[in-house]
Amino acid sequence: MFEKILIANRGEIALRVHRACREMGIRTVAIHSEADADAMHVRLADESVCVGPPPAGKSYLNIPQIIAACEITGAQAVHPGYGFLSENARFAEIVEAHGIAFIGPTAEHIRLMGDKIAAKKAVKDAGIPVVPGSDGGITDIDEAKKLADEIGYPVLVKAASGGGGRGMKVAKDAASFREAVETASAEALAAFGDGAVYLEKYLGQPRHIEIQILADQHGNVVHLGERDCSLQRRHQKILEEAPSPALTPEARAKIGAITRDAVAAIGYRGVGTIEYLYENGEFYFIEMNTRLQVEHPVTEAITRIDLVREQIRVANGEELGFTQDDIKFNGWAIECRINAEDPATFAPSPGKVTDFHAPGGLGVRLDSALYAGYAIPPYYDSLIGKLIVHGRTREETLLRLRRALEEMVVGGIKTTTPLFLELLEEPAFVSGDYHIRWLESWLAERNTAN
Amino acid sequence: MFEKILIANRGEIALRVHRACREMGIRTVAIHSEADADAMHVRLADESVCVGPPPAGKSYLNIPQIIAACEITGAQAVHPGYGFLSENARFAEIVEAHGIAFIGPTAEHIRLMGDKIAAKKAVKDAGIPVVPGSDGGITDIDEAKKLADEIGYPVLVKAASGGGGRGMKVAKDAASFREAVETASAEALAAFGDGAVYLEKYLGQPRHIEIQILADQHGNVVHLGERDCSLQRRHQKILEEAPSPALTPEARAKIGAITRDAVAAIGYRGVGTIEYLYENGEFYFIEMNTRLQVEHPVTEAITRIDLVREQIRVANGEELGFTQDDIKFNGWAIECRINAEDPATFAPSPGKVTDFHAPGGLGVRLDSALYAGYAIPPYYDSLIGKLIVHGRTREETLLRLRRALEEMVVGGIKTTTPLFLELLEEPAFVSGDYHIRWLESWLAERNTAN
Repeated sequence: MFEKILIANRGEIALRVHRACREMGIRTVAIHSEADADAMHVRLADESVCVGPPPAGKSYLNIPQIIAACEITGAQAVHPGYGFLSENARFAEIVEAHGIAFIGPTAEHIRLMGDKIAAKKAVKDAGIPVVPGSDGGITDIDEAKKLADEIGYPVLVKAASGGGGRGMKVAKDAASFREAVETASAEALAAFGDGAVYLEKYLGQPRHIEIQILADQHGNVVHLGERDCSLQRRHQKILEEAPSPALTPEARAKIGAITRDAVAAIGYRGVGTIEYLYENGEFYFIEMNTRLQVEHPVTEAITRIDLVREQIRVANGEELGFTQDDIKFNGWAIECRINAEDPATFAPSPGKVTDFHAPGGLGVRLDSALYAGYAIPPYYDSLIGKLIVHGRTREETLLRLRRALEEMVVGGIKTTTPLFLELLEEPAFVSGDYHIRWLESWLAERNTAN
Repeated sequence: MFEKILIANRGEIALRVHRACREMGIRTVAIHSEADADAMHVRLADESVCVGPPPAGKSYLNIPQIIAACEITGAQAVHPGYGFLSENARFAEIVEAHGIAFIGPTAEHIRLMGDKIAAKKAVKDAGIPVVPGSDGGITDIDEAKKLADEIGYPVLVKAASGGGGRGMKVAKDAASFREAVETASAEALAAFGDGAVYLEKYLGQPRHIEIQILADQHGNVVHLGERDCSLQRRHQKILEEAPSPALTPEARAKIGAITRDAVAAIGYRGVGTIEYLYENGEFYFIEMNTRLQVEHPVTEAITRIDLVREQIRVANGEELGFTQDDIKFNGWAIECRINAEDPATFAPSPGKVTDFHAPGGLGVRLDSALYAGYAIPPYYDSLIGKLIVHGRTREETLLRLRRALEEMVVGGIKTTTPLFLELLEEPAFVSGDYHIRWLESWLAERNTAN
């Protein structure tokens, strides 16, 4: 096993990786910017190296400095966390070229999944469902109508050269299809000088459901069930849960198996997530994330598998040591992303944390690098903690979530904690009946009402 | 369900009960002494009543004041926690005489189990193994020898009128039996004017293993496996684990079933614990605790059953709703009792907590009513927190325990945290090969060495 790992990240995820290393008897090297000298991940690591000033481009994204930090400290492997260099194929290549293990997939797989068109083709070929549509622009309206009938209504008509919502129409049914195409095409011609449109199945109120995958270097792949991340604001996940309130055990097993088999066919290694939109019982591929996700702890809660530990083990060439049948799903877990933001406006709220009190007790996990007296620098992502609660049922988990949120104290700055307490009063959220556009509508209504 | 529960306790257990109530939608009433006005359990409860000054005799043990607090606030039930009035049969009777539910067993069962001789007889009749021995004093040495041969050696010879170790001898084998009896009898005659001795099987290095029981008022009883609480100092438990490193699954199932059936035969309700000494594959009854135990969270970790919630449910007359077969044991859990004590001398260390930082992350639970700025009063038990870690295996759990202990910060006072870090270096503890006398020997050796 590796004796020393460099953690190329900051904040709660650097602490998360440090904890896993500690529990495996592996020494840790923290890197940090000049703004992060007092950060928790630096305090707890066995060694630390300053890699430059903020912003991230000069430090956490500074590849030569990070490689130098590995060489100075003798780190045998690098864990990139999420964000920053975690999906940078070049970084993975450079790390490995220096004889250091990259705790993640091969550079080739990172690159493939980073190219959205190539990724869609690769996963489709491997059996993953994608959004049906035309492969390119269509100019013949009869041909288009035939395809739209096949796809099923509503159909989204989009300008091939378009963007920003212009030249985009929804055809609700066969009767309105021709008009939608003509309008979209005319708009597209006027706006972009190209009347070609393409078709895609329209998803009105889909959920975001993603499947967690874990693969070793010996061809063993398991799926660890799904996470429902439909509560989003500006495409940012706010709260995630596992399992999804929308899936039956049969649907879960089916999409899990399809995803696992596809990932096996691609020859992927490490942890990864296939993200889907889900509507009317059908899944549609969005993208594959070739790294650990922010929301991985909900999967850990219901499977009791330590994903970072497994990630390190498989990066070291070990076999999984368990099969799909060994994985049992137990209870319900919800994660809230606690951000240093105004809960009404979402404006960032960095600054000194005067008081900090973590909720505790049964079924409560907090992943946070905060401490009382810590000054949150203004340069980075506003995520300051993840509150993960686990219970036997969704109902029990929601009640536990409320009491944990009520116990948490973060003084001196604004956080999004009150937002979650508000959501716990909302019937749509409480019943689990929400989709990727629900939170923004709710926020808009709330803001109008206030 | 009850709408409001009064919690007749303080500290972490008052907080524990509050959390369970909160998660069940039940309002809470805290009671507190004048010294505890700033305590966490008071801050979080929906209402609070001051029941008198310290020490406990004038407040937490002041039955008329507590009943008055129930009547003033309209509490429909009382949860006694552990310690204080939790095993006071008269309190249970008075509470129920006022039309308030006592969250615990009947006064009759509390009284029965509080009478050590009657308790031993009752559980023996119900099939629970007790320490074999003579029922009373024996004067005829041949009769005594016959019984000793039956019990098996070593045999403890004790003065019937004795105490304090005088008139007590261990007969290692049949050959040394007569001499042991003669010496003990002569000592007893000289010391107490009564040469009668009695015999008991001698347990040299037993473990303390206890079985958690849960019973509703409809005759349904389950056992929730064992806890190993062999790490003790002056009969005080310091660290507890579940399962026990000493039991096979067969032994666990067997003693669990015996205990469950006996508790069912007795007609007990609520949570309870039967404590045993365990040596050479045999169990010997110590006593039954008719309340929640300090160490209940290790059982919660491996069964995922919320014991306080179940306690409240069955006190309200609800059925368990699950059977023995539904209970699955999962992984390994260890609890450390963090005391405000000097880790070298165990002298109490009350005072102001200047800093407090709770460990977090996967598999870590902290039950503590501490907060930064809180002044620990000198009047009460020194327990200030329980750190519970859970992992898939004992080895993983020990590694997790170490990293969690390393993360914890309690400034301004001394705590027993360093003691656990020392124990994690001890082969006997790490291998699980310890017994109820081990910790005191180890402490004595350590103190001699220093």
